[in-house]
Amino acid sequence: MDTNGNLTHLMTDLAAKARAGAEALRLSGPEARTRLILSAARHIRAQQDAILSANAADVEAASQKGLSSAMVERLVLNPDRVEAMARGLEDVAALPDPVGKELARWERPNGLDIARVSTPIGVIGIIYESRPNVTADAAALCIRSSNGAILRTGSEALNSAKAIFVAFEQAFAEADLPAAVQLVPTADRDAVGLLLGGLNEAVNLIIPRGGKSLVARVQAEARVPVLAHLEGLNHTYVHAEADPDKAVSIVLNAKMRRVSVCGATETLLIDKAVAETLLPRIALALIEKGCELRGDEAARAIQPMVEATEDDWRTEYLDKILAVRVVSGLNEAVEHIRSFGTQHTEAIITEDAEAAEAFLNEVDSAIVIWNASTQFADGGEFGLGAEIGIATGRMHARGPVGAEQLTTFKYVVRGSGQTRP
Amino acid sequence: MDTNGNLTHLMTDLAAKARAGAEALRLSGPEARTRLILSAARHIRAQQDAILSANAADVEAASQKGLSSAMVERLVLNPDRVEAMARGLEDVAALPDPVGKELARWERPNGLDIARVSTPIGVIGIIYESRPNVTADAAALCIRSSNGAILRTGSEALNSAKAIFVAFEQAFAEADLPAAVQLVPTADRDAVGLLLGGLNEAVNLIIPRGGKSLVARVQAEARVPVLAHLEGLNHTYVHAEADPDKAVSIVLNAKMRRVSVCGATETLLIDKAVAETLLPRIALALIEKGCELRGDEAARAIQPMVEATEDDWRTEYLDKILAVRVVSGLNEAVEHIRSFGTQHTEAIITEDAEAAEAFLNEVDSAIVIWNASTQFADGGEFGLGAEIGIATGRMHARGPVGAEQLTTFKYVVRGSGQTRP
Repeated sequence: MDTNGNLTHLMTDLAAKARAGAEALRLSGPEARTRLILSAARHIRAQQDAILSANAADVEAASQKGLSSAMVERLVLNPDRVEAMARGLEDVAALPDPVGKELARWERPNGLDIARVSTPIGVIGIIYESRPNVTADAAALCIRSSNGAILRTGSEALNSAKAIFVAFEQAFAEADLPAAVQLVPTADRDAVGLLLGGLNEAVNLIIPRGGKSLVARVQAEARVPVLAHLEGLNHTYVHAEADPDKAVSIVLNAKMRRVSVCGATETLLIDKAVAETLLPRIALALIEKGCELRGDEAARAIQPMVEATEDDWRTEYLDKILAVRVVSGLNEAVEHIRSFGTQHTEAIITEDAEAAEAFLNEVDSAIVIWNASTQFADGGEFGLGAEIGIATGRMHARGPVGAEQLTTFKYVVRGSGQTRP
Repeated sequence: MDTNGNLTHLMTDLAAKARAGAEALRLSGPEARTRLILSAARHIRAQQDAILSANAADVEAASQKGLSSAMVERLVLNPDRVEAMARGLEDVAALPDPVGKELARWERPNGLDIARVSTPIGVIGIIYESRPNVTADAAALCIRSSNGAILRTGSEALNSAKAIFVAFEQAFAEADLPAAVQLVPTADRDAVGLLLGGLNEAVNLIIPRGGKSLVARVQAEARVPVLAHLEGLNHTYVHAEADPDKAVSIVLNAKMRRVSVCGATETLLIDKAVAETLLPRIALALIEKGCELRGDEAARAIQPMVEATEDDWRTEYLDKILAVRVVSGLNEAVEHIRSFGTQHTEAIITEDAEAAEAFLNEVDSAIVIWNASTQFADGGEFGLGAEIGIATGRMHARGPVGAEQLTTFKYVVRGSGQTRP
């Protein structure tokens, strides 16, 4: 793109194609959408080598640019991850089609027959960073929900995204349908600004998927609604009645399974009553895996670790670091989460059902968990097939955003001549 | 308010009270919320005289200021409208409580038990203009849904709003609950700016209810999500197979029942095939009621009327004026609605079920209606009890916004020690 006029033209064209493709997709019916997604999965498997070599080029460039290890880890594909991507598409293909469903229907005393029917949202701009699987997940979820999509990946993952996108182009071509999914083919950063401006009302929703600065920019600049994934500053709270083995294995998994995912636990809260016996066991397991602990005074009195400051309660590390705080009980744990949490995912480990239910009721996060790892915060793990992200806002959708969350609805009213008194 | 600092202090205090009140309301349980709303209804009836005399002062001031007849009409209360307000509250009281409901629950193969549970949104800022019943409806809907509310009425309706609000203060006092509903007691316009700024994240949602300029200001300035009611530039389409009597009575009702409501029809589309016979009948009925018609060339060739320009297709009159266009058939009608409509409410009048279903499917408005008046676009008429407005956006809720639409949800996950592979 040598001029901004050209870029505007390109983006407007992508939006028009996405809208026309979405309408054709809606009219093609649920089975055609299923076949389309399965076909894309086949093409992804068939082109594994091309995808991996495009990805290798991205990873090489990222390493040379000195990106953080967390960023590079998110970027890397391998045969397992390509296979997981294809399987993710198959999961989405197997989902019930979320569009055209009667969500509710009732009759009024005057005989009006009212139905609430699910519809696509329209054209969705998805702005993400370095995770290549987002290209496949987002495309499949938009196809499943008959939405048009304009996918905008970070420049560091553009080669990978293009290689994955080829599978979708082939699938649309095979089905003889115009492509409802479009990929912004340039790394020009102005493309993001154009998307956020809504391209003259051609974009109905923006979903940013990435770090704080991306999301903050999107929220500040977007002239259309935003379904935002902000931070996952998640807590695991080990209650006085926790089963020690569960506590150790869950905290270890919640922190260390993958430190760069948004469902990773960032702060451990542990009851004073069990800290003395349980914290050393948990700490040992974490330290063996290379995790750094940063604790408050009470934690450090039990187990040697770096001193935590208030900044640590506010930091989403996305790294092998865990903040640790000893609390007096449930109320202090809930209060800490209320003060420092990002309403993403919080877990309590306890055998006391009453305490668990109090925690589940009082903590106002998108996902609240009893006796399991916070790393389950994931659309696939929830059975949604795949997710575009976890919504941390409170409107339209909270938690994993899958195909069903990418719909809206309209009311269909059938009468027989009624006028309103 | 003599300084902005005082106003900020006042508004922050209202938000804190609303949040604390909302939490107490949530814990008080569904029955307590029902009793609270019924008690407010009783107090509204008991204070009818005080409400009407406060309203008379507002109407007098509005007339002196030379407000438009449509605005004054919206402002006026009479015993019937006060009674309707009280009955509206009773309808809301009778609604199923929308909070704490299990919306879905399923088990994953790994044994995780996942439930989606409805929760309140939080604190909602409701900014409206001159319709006094909004004070009662909004308060009741927020109580029903355990939300905190900060109500901000237009200065022209402040006396009426204060008189109505007294009934709610009395109801909260009787129930010994802190008031989750707060009314901004000053006409200071800066209060709106403070609400739109979110009061340091104390406000979770803004609902503007009023004219285009208010909504445009809210959408431009709000730093928190907005559930907006934009325009109701609604169409009634008389199809070639329309029943003539239904067409006449529905169009007359859709336009003239109340010209100032958002569900009023603003443009009549009529098939060429029946315009010659049917348009004169419809026109006569409208003209008898004092409605001005503005038509395209084809309409004027059949029936004398003012010449319509493209501006007329784009104008929400909210007055005794109707734009009229003759169309060649369903496709042209749908195309006109797509070009000029505001995705609020559109109706088709026809005895041809296939044409009706095509219209209902193709027109992407919040409400699509077959053989009934567009003036049914109303939460009460839908059986929602009352509404804060009609949402014309596509996210979170479309159409009438009632108590159920003022909730969000969280996922409650119950495990037995699961870690993620």
